[in-house]
Amino acid sequence: MVKRVLFATLLAATSTPALTQTVDEKLDQLDARITRLEDLDQIERVQRTYGYFVDKGQWTQLSELFAEDATLEIGGKGLFLGKKRVLEYMQTAFGPDGAKPNVLANHMQFQTLPDVSPDGTTGWLRGRAFVMSNAGWGLPLYEDEFVKEDGVWKFKRLTGPFTMYTSWEGWGKNALNNTWPDKFDPPPDLPPSTIYLTYPAYFIIPFHYPNPVTGKAFLPDKDDVGAYHRPPGTPEQAEALKVGRPAYGDQPIAEPPRN
Amino acid sequence: MVKRVLFATLLAATSTPALTQTVDEKLDQLDARITRLEDLDQIERVQRTYGYFVDKGQWTQLSELFAEDATLEIGGKGLFLGKKRVLEYMQTAFGPDGAKPNVLANHMQFQTLPDVSPDGTTGWLRGRAFVMSNAGWGLPLYEDEFVKEDGVWKFKRLTGPFTMYTSWEGWGKNALNNTWPDKFDPPPDLPPSTIYLTYPAYFIIPFHYPNPVTGKAFLPDKDDVGAYHRPPGTPEQAEALKVGRPAYGDQPIAEPPRN
Amino acid sequence: MVKRVLFATLLAATSTPALTQTVDEKLDQLDARITRLEDLDQIERVQRTYGYFVDKGQWTQLSELFAEDATLEIGGKGLFLGKKRVLEYMQTAFGPDGAKPNVLANHMQFQTLPDVSPDGTTGWLRGRAFVMSNAGWGLPLYEDEFVKEDGVWKFKRLTGPFTMYTSWEGWGKNALNNTWPDKFDPPPDLPPSTIYLTYPAYFIIPFHYPNPVTGKAFLPDKDDVGAYHRPPGTPEQAEALKVGRPAYGDQPIAEPPRN
Repeated sequence: MVKRVLFATLLAATSTPALTQTVDEKLDQLDARITRLEDLDQIERVQRTYGYFVDKGQWTQLSELFAEDATLEIGGKGLFLGKKRVLEYMQTAFGPDGAKPNVLANHMQFQTLPDVSPDGTTGWLRGRAFVMSNAGWGLPLYEDEFVKEDGVWKFKRLTGPFTMYTSWEGWGKNALNNTWPDKFDPPPDLPPSTIYLTYPAYFIIPFHYPNPVTGKAFLPDKDDVGAYHRPPGTPEQAEALKVGRPAYGDQPIAEPPRN
Repeated sequence: MVKRVLFATLLAATSTPALTQTVDEKLDQLDARITRLEDLDQIERVQRTYGYFVDKGQWTQLSELFAEDATLEIGGKGLFLGKKRVLEYMQTAFGPDGAKPNVLANHMQFQTLPDVSPDGTTGWLRGRAFVMSNAGWGLPLYEDEFVKEDGVWKFKRLTGPFTMYTSWEGWGKNALNNTWPDKFDPPPDLPPSTIYLTYPAYFIIPFHYPNPVTGKAFLPDKDDVGAYHRPPGTPEQAEALKVGRPAYGDQPIAEPPRN
Repeated sequence: MVKRVLFATLLAATSTPALTQTVDEKLDQLDARITRLEDLDQIERVQRTYGYFVDKGQWTQLSELFAEDATLEIGGKGLFLGKKRVLEYMQTAFGPDGAKPNVLANHMQFQTLPDVSPDGTTGWLRGRAFVMSNAGWGLPLYEDEFVKEDGVWKFKRLTGPFTMYTSWEGWGKNALNNTWPDKFDPPPDLPPSTIYLTYPAYFIIPFHYPNPVTGKAFLPDKDDVGAYHRPPGTPEQAEALKVGRPAYGDQPIAEPPRN
């Protein structure tokens, strides 16, 4: 990110000064700035649409928001690789397409912070959701990546760890610090990129963007926040759920672990 | 909506190629793209302002956000026709202008998805609110239409069915699947355009916009979701509240019923 | 605000008609419109980033979002003057930088309404947050001012009175109409600019922007809404907490009281 900001600054510094620019150069610069604003708008649109599709179990439509080689990682469950697996995950875990009586699955999206790379082909978004489902309430936080293919923005990576998860009765008392995502099918293609626990533990998902005033990259602090890094059902996992594991702030967001 | 997208695609395909465009043509195209972004921003602004006005019972100010011939339909109550009736509805149902002690009416707006027609005179917005009122909590979902008159965007149609409505004690247990909007005055000018029940039933309000990646229009599925389509106070209505009625996904949003 | 709108209208009316504009004049006008959209985006970004920093106790990063001479006033506690005092307030009241186990401090931001002055150096934003903290739940409403210094938008004034504050158990029954901000350190540099109580009392924080359709400035009504305008711990304060004090709608937002 720092690299990206420096690159943009460099570009600005070496571009032709405004006074001696030709009309065509000026037109191109305005065009680029408008394109960036349109891109930010479109990236937000994909994220917000995702939320509306989850609300009503529109899994096929939802999977179409993803690029062919996109990844998805939600709630500590591990990585699903590719658009088809995104669809399989949703339909296996949450049932066939469509809303259902007695099911509430609202994933209400807000506080979006979109960004676009200088070359206009990669995007990022930090955002969050307030989940109100009949199963409980949760607060996922997203750090997603987007790709522009043939002029269309799509999810390249969706990463949504939870900040809190609780029942409908008493937020203060009943928060679960682990949603045990291994207890339901399907299993992921890769283990989670980051091991974490939710409130009363915490995890700071690294920011894709620098401080908007200073331009400094955000370096999260380090602490014991994790669990779920041992085979499900083993004593090692049971122990891990209690003690956690360091989730270092300098680890990449949602990149597959190196081995 | 598909038609609208095709039209835009056609426009792009038949417009003068960039290489041979004159400076004036380029300026006009940039102008049009900026105008679209400004329009999207202004449509969101009207929707968000609406929420702030509801919060504090600013009914006169709120009604001024509507075009003279606008319609309003909230919570299954039926259609109010025209700006004056919007004001009358608010002041009759919720009291005179102004905030009041012991009254909380927060209508917190978010997840806005605005759109503008190619000719720049019609707009749409999907959005939602988290209502925290002293009477209860609710989750309205909006599919609204806007019109640009003399350069100013206004509500042309506000349609806000509820996804859930409940008391302050226990969301899981106490959700009401019908808010019985006929029990309070004033009566609407026309019956509801769509008959639906809230959670634990459901209603998918049709999307005004296509899938942002595939461009395909959204076709909601069909199911029994409705009630309140019989005269209030009759045995027929009482029965309807239990059994519901199909709300077909292909019915128009908030257009008055044909008979 | 009315003045600002009139000024903008005047500008538009007296500028060179589009037909006789030179290419350079047209380019400059498009540039100005794009800059405005970029500014609105950046102001929203600073506000939303503020929320993410509060979530995780990133007080140093948060203070860097403020201009050197910025002011901060939250929850009726009084004014803190300058960036350094913003940092001191946060670290004294809420502990050293960093997230902590057993602490939840989510300040989820939404419903942002940004604006920019015609000269492009001053900005405003109305917005709100849904606070979910382990201490309780709250609904702050923001009316903030921003300044553009060396091309970078920063907080010039953050004003965040609460609409409601309550415990995790029962929103209806347990709402506190005063959060007694004097009970925790540090003391502010100046007393609160506005005296108010939260639900079941109310306070309409004046709108920085006019009705987006009529252009009319918003004049909040007047009522008994206040308390906390007597020395803490005195019988006068205890009495004030019961009876309130008029908070006139025409008083300036967050300007220090005149004596």
